[in-house]
Amino acid sequence: MDQFEKAGYSQESIGFGNRCAVLMVDFQKGFTDGTSPLGRSDHVQRAVNNTAVLLEAAKAHGIPVASCRVAWNSRDDMAYWKIGSLYDGSFYHGHPCTEFDPRISDPDYIFEFTKTAPSIFFLTPLLTWLTKHCIDTTIITGCTTSGCVRASIVDSFSHGYRTIVPEDCCGDQDEGPHLDNLRDVGRRYADVVTLQDVLAHFKTLSPTADRRPTSPEETA
Amino acid sequence: MDQFEKAGYSQESIGFGNRCAVLMVDFQKGFTDGTSPLGRSDHVQRAVNNTAVLLEAAKAHGIPVASCRVAWNSRDDMAYWKIGSLYDGSFYHGHPCTEFDPRISDPDYIFEFTKTAPSIFFLTPLLTWLTKHCIDTTIITGCTTSGCVRASIVDSFSHGYRTIVPEDCCGDQDEGPHLDNLRDVGRRYADVVTLQDVLAHFKTLSPTADRRPTSPEETA
Amino acid sequence: MDQFEKAGYSQESIGFGNRCAVLMVDFQKGFTDGTSPLGRSDHVQRAVNNTAVLLEAAKAHGIPVASCRVAWNSRDDMAYWKIGSLYDGSFYHGHPCTEFDPRISDPDYIFEFTKTAPSIFFLTPLLTWLTKHCIDTTIITGCTTSGCVRASIVDSFSHGYRTIVPEDCCGDQDEGPHLDNLRDVGRRYADVVTLQDVLAHFKTLSPTADRRPTSPEETA
Amino acid sequence: MDQFEKAGYSQESIGFGNRCAVLMVDFQKGFTDGTSPLGRSDHVQRAVNNTAVLLEAAKAHGIPVASCRVAWNSRDDMAYWKIGSLYDGSFYHGHPCTEFDPRISDPDYIFEFTKTAPSIFFLTPLLTWLTKHCIDTTIITGCTTSGCVRASIVDSFSHGYRTIVPEDCCGDQDEGPHLDNLRDVGRRYADVVTLQDVLAHFKTLSPTADRRPTSPEETA
Repeated sequence: MDQFEKAGYSQESIGFGNRCAVLMVDFQKGFTDGTSPLGRSDHVQRAVNNTAVLLEAAKAHGIPVASCRVAWNSRDDMAYWKIGSLYDGSFYHGHPCTEFDPRISDPDYIFEFTKTAPSIFFLTPLLTWLTKHCIDTTIITGCTTSGCVRASIVDSFSHGYRTIVPEDCCGDQDEGPHLDNLRDVGRRYADVVTLQDVLAHFKTLSPTADRRPTSPEETA
Repeated sequence: MDQFEKAGYSQESIGFGNRCAVLMVDFQKGFTDGTSPLGRSDHVQRAVNNTAVLLEAAKAHGIPVASCRVAWNSRDDMAYWKIGSLYDGSFYHGHPCTEFDPRISDPDYIFEFTKTAPSIFFLTPLLTWLTKHCIDTTIITGCTTSGCVRASIVDSFSHGYRTIVPEDCCGDQDEGPHLDNLRDVGRRYADVVTLQDVLAHFKTLSPTADRRPTSPEETA
Repeated sequence: MDQFEKAGYSQESIGFGNRCAVLMVDFQKGFTDGTSPLGRSDHVQRAVNNTAVLLEAAKAHGIPVASCRVAWNSRDDMAYWKIGSLYDGSFYHGHPCTEFDPRISDPDYIFEFTKTAPSIFFLTPLLTWLTKHCIDTTIITGCTTSGCVRASIVDSFSHGYRTIVPEDCCGDQDEGPHLDNLRDVGRRYADVVTLQDVLAHFKTLSPTADRRPTSPEETA
Repeated sequence: MDQFEKAGYSQESIGFGNRCAVLMVDFQKGFTDGTSPLGRSDHVQRAVNNTAVLLEAAKAHGIPVASCRVAWNSRDDMAYWKIGSLYDGSFYHGHPCTEFDPRISDPDYIFEFTKTAPSIFFLTPLLTWLTKHCIDTTIITGCTTSGCVRASIVDSFSHGYRTIVPEDCCGDQDEGPHLDNLRDVGRRYADVVTLQDVLAHFKTLSPTADRRPTSPEETA
């Protein structure tokens, strides 16, 4: 029993609620296709490929999906990042590095938007969309686990969502920090599971329901 | 050169700006005096004692200080925490575990408030106070490094503050996760320094200035 | 047809969703009992008495209720208010003016908390609680309509909630600004209704259901 | 003396602080050029023309300027707006109605971004940019006064900024609600002034200073 267990960490589990959404963090070319020095991790490739499977299952079950990329106008609206490769212009609006990876892009189905900080929640329209869809559970995927994914998990938890992290749908520059961060959040904030666990949960749901609520105005 | 350095992490430093504030995260009895199972870490004692030194220096230089504790009304307004020992009532309003540690408490000088989530910024009045004090640099201390301190650092960075973390003013249940998290944030979001570094910076400031701005209404 | 109608305002209605919460804004003694110069409006008395009826109905139907007061530590954490009577200390923590009006207080049922700005949403724990309760519809009451109620309506709308305003449960210093603000929000953001409309909606709900979700950890 | 004055409203003034920014709310073609039913107000034309003068003065004094438009992906990410003309597609990304009015557009100087709710602050990157520029005073212009401008003023105030509203730089569908809302915010949250007042303040500032801070990384 480690110091954390003695203190009472990891004693509760969370579980899926009634209405899930899949959130995808920063699966954009700058991190997934090698164009940028930031995009050369094999560990991230695994995450994209697994999330593509998750996306298909989500669509088959009518589960809402949101996806964000990071982009800025210029250095002027960036926070004090210590990552030098973010400053070469490849993460400014319009650059190919800010395009979504084609394996997980589907603008007709996915709510796609841009963020400027690590968390997918930080000053983005995600909250309003989650409320409109009556979501109580987020399934968080993306890259990198020790950066933007970690920040997104903490914000999802803080906002009162049941937060589920399929670990093989998250990627990092290296496996050590990936595991360290899953350990930290699994003790406190989120259930760390696998892609197969999420797919198994989806199978318990009625396959035909469209879980994306019809816009109330449209039915009025 | 590790995978992160190859990708461009850790290439920039941030530095102090013109107006610092000290932020103290969760130095409350529940984490610092052994009443709760969560409060039995020696590593946290070091952090409290060092932060008490930092607090005295901040007061001597007129640097604003804010301090938060975590507390809830009941399980009803808590997020889905996995830490079982948070649910025994000792972190509900009015319990001694929610009192600030006397080594760092000074309600006449410190802006003290309550939060409900990991980050000192999350849905708290801190932002308004920072704006009124024209702060551009936060110096973050507290416990635990791998939980509420990490979340606070990420939010400080995201909001555009220069974020400085004196590592010996932060404590955790165990040293491993403390170091892992300082590594992660030091690569991306914050300058990780020591108490002595911050004290040395304070000494470069005019000793007599009261850096807490007079309320503009009072001078009108 | 006025200029707003020609431009397309007021063309849609919103309606109740599946899960309502009642929000009560600033029904605290400083605004309701004449202790403060701010508390001498008859129009506010009507709002408190009507909201007390609404509260009983909400409890009978198991509908969650949240209530906020405004309070500060000192001038140091207040925004640049132009209302001089806020600066005499009667809205600092612990003063009777910050106590909830007994006609609408019930800490065993109501989620009660403190705010520092006009909106009940602004940097308060309300969002997390609404998410945990899976709320899609807010019913907003309180005082004053042209101040904190207006700000709360705009934030509720912005966060994606269906926003319902029973106008006779809202009070102001004078009736003119009350009506002006209901006009503005009714064109854009909210359905402006009456107490009787809300009570009639509650009667359509199953009377025995406890709509406050059991804490998932407790059922686990 | 009206009921509000008796209660203590309008007793304080705010004044300019040390570092201003100009914020422009929704000066986009959909509201300024008649393409949309929402864009046919003469009162808004006055506001755009006056703000163009303000913009030139701001640039001459190196004062930072931010500007937002509203746009959505589809009905799916819109809040429950009651304005029917927002749903015809003309406010979706890429439509000419979402382009900035050329009289006030200057992407090389202005921080331009997109919002989804009434307030220029609501879940947008504005806060981070304001912090980086050490802003303590916002000068708010835009349309419409009784909608997005009002919401932006309340949020600016709530975040602790000194908030200045040159009333002839704000426009509405009709003058009545414009004046009603200036009355409400002038009692509580903001100094309501004129374009000339702001220009006179700018003249007191050193004309040559570039008040947009150099990016600290660039000077490091």
